[in-house]
Amino acid sequence: MTITINTARLKGELEALATISEVEPPAITRVVYSDADRRARKWFRGLCEAAGLATRSDAIGNVFVRWEGTEPTLAAIGTGSHIDAIPYAGAYDGTVGVLGGLEAIRALKESGHRPRRSIELLLFTAEEPTRFGIGCFGSRLLAGALDAGADDRLKDAEGETLRQLRTGAGFSGSIESVRLNPDYYAGFVELHIEQGPLLEREGIPIGVVTNIAAPSGLRITFEGEGGHAGALLMPDRRDAFCAAAEIVLAVERAAKGTGVIDTCGTVGKCAIHPGAVNSVPSHVVMEVDVRDTDAARRDRVLNEIREACRETATRRGVGITIEQVNADAPAESSPAIVAVIEAASQQLGLASKRMVSRAYHDSLFMARLAPMGMIFIPCRGGVSHRPDEYASPEAIADGVRVLALTLARLAE
Amino acid sequence: MTITINTARLKGELEALATISEVEPPAITRVVYSDADRRARKWFRGLCEAAGLATRSDAIGNVFVRWEGTEPTLAAIGTGSHIDAIPYAGAYDGTVGVLGGLEAIRALKESGHRPRRSIELLLFTAEEPTRFGIGCFGSRLLAGALDAGADDRLKDAEGETLRQLRTGAGFSGSIESVRLNPDYYAGFVELHIEQGPLLEREGIPIGVVTNIAAPSGLRITFEGEGGHAGALLMPDRRDAFCAAAEIVLAVERAAKGTGVIDTCGTVGKCAIHPGAVNSVPSHVVMEVDVRDTDAARRDRVLNEIREACRETATRRGVGITIEQVNADAPAESSPAIVAVIEAASQQLGLASKRMVSRAYHDSLFMARLAPMGMIFIPCRGGVSHRPDEYASPEAIADGVRVLALTLARLAE
Repeated sequence: MTITINTARLKGELEALATISEVEPPAITRVVYSDADRRARKWFRGLCEAAGLATRSDAIGNVFVRWEGTEPTLAAIGTGSHIDAIPYAGAYDGTVGVLGGLEAIRALKESGHRPRRSIELLLFTAEEPTRFGIGCFGSRLLAGALDAGADDRLKDAEGETLRQLRTGAGFSGSIESVRLNPDYYAGFVELHIEQGPLLEREGIPIGVVTNIAAPSGLRITFEGEGGHAGALLMPDRRDAFCAAAEIVLAVERAAKGTGVIDTCGTVGKCAIHPGAVNSVPSHVVMEVDVRDTDAARRDRVLNEIREACRETATRRGVGITIEQVNADAPAESSPAIVAVIEAASQQLGLASKRMVSRAYHDSLFMARLAPMGMIFIPCRGGVSHRPDEYASPEAIADGVRVLALTLARLAE
Repeated sequence: MTITINTARLKGELEALATISEVEPPAITRVVYSDADRRARKWFRGLCEAAGLATRSDAIGNVFVRWEGTEPTLAAIGTGSHIDAIPYAGAYDGTVGVLGGLEAIRALKESGHRPRRSIELLLFTAEEPTRFGIGCFGSRLLAGALDAGADDRLKDAEGETLRQLRTGAGFSGSIESVRLNPDYYAGFVELHIEQGPLLEREGIPIGVVTNIAAPSGLRITFEGEGGHAGALLMPDRRDAFCAAAEIVLAVERAAKGTGVIDTCGTVGKCAIHPGAVNSVPSHVVMEVDVRDTDAARRDRVLNEIREACRETATRRGVGITIEQVNADAPAESSPAIVAVIEAASQQLGLASKRMVSRAYHDSLFMARLAPMGMIFIPCRGGVSHRPDEYASPEAIADGVRVLALTLARLAE
């Protein structure tokens, strides 16, 4: 089978999608259910329909694009990723798997191929935790890993609930209806940029993911005592931000302390109240992300952070409360799908290497529904979640070729 | 001379002003040129005009309320304070000096008194640095301590210039026109809550300020490298927020290190970019406030902070730049006015004590224009810049009595 990728078409579509953003280019912000997110979805569905593919959305906006196989009653093969982007992000995280997945299906169709199993392309709602503080929101619900109460419990920073926001974006129905049957898919494969430096450094075009590390998220709240920055004397202070600063450094120390590069610890968000230059901080909320491929090691880091919080709270007289926002288990790829991806790479003359995904992906949850695999392609400098994130059209085309051949094999 | 303060009227007016806010009571946010600030000014001018006092505004919105003396060509006696409030502040900081000043004048008028010198009540624009990052903005311009370029240089967080904002609020004309002649006032007295615990603790109703400490403000910018919280490995990181956390603790250490309670160091504001839970902070800006009654000691603290920044920058590979936002000199009260305030207290049978003002006030700049003094009254728990800030109607009335008598003496 000869599969011809239209590299220029795909490049053009990635560029077009990059213009749909809440901020000025080259930075991209596309938060779920925002105006930019809605415009991007609409544009994407138009693209699929122009390619003769039927689309549907579920109650939270996951988009399913179906290419009917010759035996449509069989479990389908899934592929896909996300198009939401954290504030001031780049143009390739997620989008390569969505538009690359579409290109793979178009290329298979145009080559005259007809799959036995149906092939479905998914656009997952809100892989990024930006709005609700919870990652892989769409795939999490598909896998049934979130209860119905989340509809009113999950709120964004403005206090709007998931129910209000999804309804406002045009998605109705019960969020329980989103859950898929475990026999819906016979396999799932996601194409994604590596978001790390290894493939580029070693000059290898294809990464075959064997494990996905998973983050554990803590929300830590510090309750001190506010006052005037000139009048509240130093010996009398219970400064919430000074306490928080100690914990920022404790997170870094705990993550570095495992001595293993698979452990990461980050404080990416911190809100200070009241937030005036001449006012002692009384209240601070920060979000901590700890991830590892080894769940037990990750838990040891979390315990170290908890211990630092206890010690700081006692010493400073600042109330510190810790809320575990999420703690997903790491996932393993299906050895069978790993083998199919490796065979496809070999057939196309592309070197591949097995690797760990340190970032997490919707595939983490799709692994609960079906045998899962992921294809990585190199990105410049390993940079991601930044406006200068970049993957070359050639690197993307290589990934799409491997994805197309893998989908064709799995759908046989 | 018998001066009768209408405590109920003043209490009612303080309560009415507290309802004009951008946030829900009991918290008060009244940022300069905001809708709440504009409504509060309008309400205040109405109150003055109802009391038969002429009002005028200058090019930035400083309000002058004039009670003409029998010899109106003589230099006037000034009093006053501010009504702007930092986010989530209380109802007494500044407002006691404005509405208390009005009550003092009304009480003098109602007692049949007629001053020789005119008495002017001032409502200073933007004592708080919230919007432009620069405190005592109105009195600073009255004293000629800010150049004309500030009109386009000073911007708020949304990038709007002083010129745009003041014009939008209805204040036009050159900002240089705001400057007062050095012979405009023969004296200036400000009534204010202590914002510290000493008067309450010692049961003394009147504080007589001898010195005003002044803040030095630094804006510190950290430039690290961003990336994905899972994919950017710990040994490769140059996390801007970890660097900032070290400096937060260095500010605290340096301020405590002088061993003198007159030194305060605070980081009240810190913005993290991009500010996503799963993204390594690339860029952080924080505002540091260091204040002291001794300018040389304050400078030593600033030097320690600068040294900590240099060391952290080198060790972490994070770019750190320090901008000195302001560095005003501390001020001394006029011994003559201190004596008049003490005599007035004594005449009214109110105990008084001399003290330092650790918070700074418009009087810091008014001291450049005229002999200056300040009257402090106790506030509950020394609390300020918080919704639970409180001064009792009786404590306020005592302060207003002393102010009225002091103004009458100075205007003789």
